[in-house]
Amino acid sequence: MLQSWNDGPARQAVLEFLRTVTDDGPGRVVAADRVATFDNDGTLWCEQPLPPQFDFVLRRWAATAAADPSKRYVEPYRAAIERDGEWLRDYEHHVPELLQGMAEAFTGTTPERFEEIVRRFFAEVSHPDLGVPYEQVCYQPMRELLDLLAGHEFRVFIASGGGRDFMRVISEPVYGILRERVIGTAPDYEYRDGLLYRLPTLLGGVDDGPGKPVHIFHQIGRPPLFAAGNADGDVEMLRSARFALLVHHDDAKREYAYDAKAERALATAARDGWTVVSMRDDWATVFPTAPVEAAAT
Amino acid sequence: MLQSWNDGPARQAVLEFLRTVTDDGPGRVVAADRVATFDNDGTLWCEQPLPPQFDFVLRRWAATAAADPSKRYVEPYRAAIERDGEWLRDYEHHVPELLQGMAEAFTGTTPERFEEIVRRFFAEVSHPDLGVPYEQVCYQPMRELLDLLAGHEFRVFIASGGGRDFMRVISEPVYGILRERVIGTAPDYEYRDGLLYRLPTLLGGVDDGPGKPVHIFHQIGRPPLFAAGNADGDVEMLRSARFALLVHHDDAKREYAYDAKAERALATAARDGWTVVSMRDDWATVFPTAPVEAAAT
Repeated sequence: MLQSWNDGPARQAVLEFLRTVTDDGPGRVVAADRVATFDNDGTLWCEQPLPPQFDFVLRRWAATAAADPSKRYVEPYRAAIERDGEWLRDYEHHVPELLQGMAEAFTGTTPERFEEIVRRFFAEVSHPDLGVPYEQVCYQPMRELLDLLAGHEFRVFIASGGGRDFMRVISEPVYGILRERVIGTAPDYEYRDGLLYRLPTLLGGVDDGPGKPVHIFHQIGRPPLFAAGNADGDVEMLRSARFALLVHHDDAKREYAYDAKAERALATAARDGWTVVSMRDDWATVFPTAPVEAAAT
Repeated sequence: MLQSWNDGPARQAVLEFLRTVTDDGPGRVVAADRVATFDNDGTLWCEQPLPPQFDFVLRRWAATAAADPSKRYVEPYRAAIERDGEWLRDYEHHVPELLQGMAEAFTGTTPERFEEIVRRFFAEVSHPDLGVPYEQVCYQPMRELLDLLAGHEFRVFIASGGGRDFMRVISEPVYGILRERVIGTAPDYEYRDGLLYRLPTLLGGVDDGPGKPVHIFHQIGRPPLFAAGNADGDVEMLRSARFALLVHHDDAKREYAYDAKAERALATAARDGWTVVSMRDDWATVFPTAPVEAAAT
C-alpha cells in the first residue's frame, strides 16, 4: 500500500491515522462517519501552468470569439484568444468578466452535450509542458491513497472549486470516484420536457474557501474525517476534518515548485499540526506510468 | 426476499426487472448506473393525516407564537395554533406564508442544533391516528425493497419534496440510507468561524415535480434506473427512470385510501405501463412489527 510514497513522516502519519480509526479500540470510528474529501486541482492532479478546466474554457471562449468577431475585444474572450497570461493569472480581479464568460459558454447546454464536449477535450488536448493527455497528470501517490481509504471503508469525495460537471466526466475512470461523490462549483439547471438545460446562475455559489464546508454539508450531511488540499481555498475544509493533509508543491524537477495562493494554508498547517506532503521528498513517483483512460465512454 | 409482499404482478415485475439488469445477458446494467430514487412521504412512510415533517413544523410555529403573541393572528402561526385543517390542506394557495414561516422557524440554526430538535420530535410525538412513534409508520414492504436493491448493488437514494435535513436524521436508522443519499428541499447555509448557519433561502428551489430530476442530477449526476413514488409530484422523476413504481393508497383498513394529488400520476402509470402497487392487494403487511429506532443517536 502507498507504494509510490517514500517511507517518511507523511506516509507514516496517514497509515497511523487509518489504523487508529479502523482498528478495534477507543479511536475506532463507525463506518458511516468515514468520509474523506479531496480537493482536485493541485491535490489530485497538476494545476500548472493552468488547471485543465481553465484550458478547456479558454478554448471554448476562443472558438466562440472566432465565430462571433464582436466578442474579439471583449473580456474574457480577448484574453482567451491571446492567451494573455498576465490578465488570466490576475483572475481574482476579473471575477465578474470570468463568471459572465463561464455563463455564456454553456448556458442552454444539456448535461449529455456538455459531457461530449468535455470528452472531446480530453481526447484531443495535451498538457502544454508535459506533452501527455491531461488525465495522465493525475498524481499516482494520491490515487493509491484514494484506494487505501476506500479499502478502509471510507467514502471518498472530491470537493473542488472546479466545475462539478467537468470533473464528473473523468472522476470514475481516473480516480475511481463515483459521480455522486464529486462536489464542485455547479450551474443551476432547469427541466423542460424530460431534459435538463444549464442556466447562467450558480447553485450555492463557488465551492472554494468558506464555500467548501457548505458544499460538503449540502452533499454529504457530515464533516470529513479525512481531508486533503493544497491551497488557501482548502483551509476551511481542512479545518473541519480530524486529519488534514496538505500537498506542498516543492518539486521543480518533476512537477512545479510554488507557494503562491498557499501561504495561509502552509502557515495554518505549521500552527495546527497538519500533515504536509513534500512532493519532492515524500513521493517516489509523481505521475502514473501506465495509461489512464478518461476519454473513453 | 420481499417477504411482506403478496406474490402478485407488482412483486413479479420488480423481481423480473432486477433479474434483467443484474444477470449476465443483454439487459445487464453496469453497477455504476444502478441508481434508485425513492420519494419519501406516502412512498416510504405514511403521509396521512399529514406528513410527519408538517406536524413537526406546526408544533414549532405554535411554540413560537406562544412565546411571541404578536404572531398569534398572523399566518401560518394562527393556522398552526388552531390546527386549522381547512387552511392547511389548502396549502397550495398559501405558499408565500408557508415559505416565510419555514424560513422564520430555523434561520440561524446550526445543523447540530436542528438535529437535536428533530430527534426530540421523534422521541416525543406519536402518529395521531395510529398511536405509535412516527418512525414506526414506515412501510415494511418498502424497507425490504430498499434492502433488495442494495443487495443487487444499487445505490438507493431518497428524493423527496420534504426537508433534506429533517430526513437525514432518520434515514440511516429507519431505512439504512446514508445521509449523503438523501435528496430533498434544503436551505442555504453560511459559514462563520467553523460553524454553519441556516439562511432563510432555499438551495435550488423545492424538490418536487420538475424539481426532482434537477435535484437528482445535482446530487447524483445520472438518472435513476429505478424510481418509486406515489403522487403527482413524482411524475417527472418516474418518467426519467427505466423502471417506475407507483404506490397506490387504496387500503382504507390498514392505512388510508386516497387518490387526491395522485390523479396525474395514476393516469400516467396506466398510459406508460408503470408498475402500480396496490397497498391493499400487494402488501401482506404494511407497517413493521418490530420496533424501529429513530430517536437514538
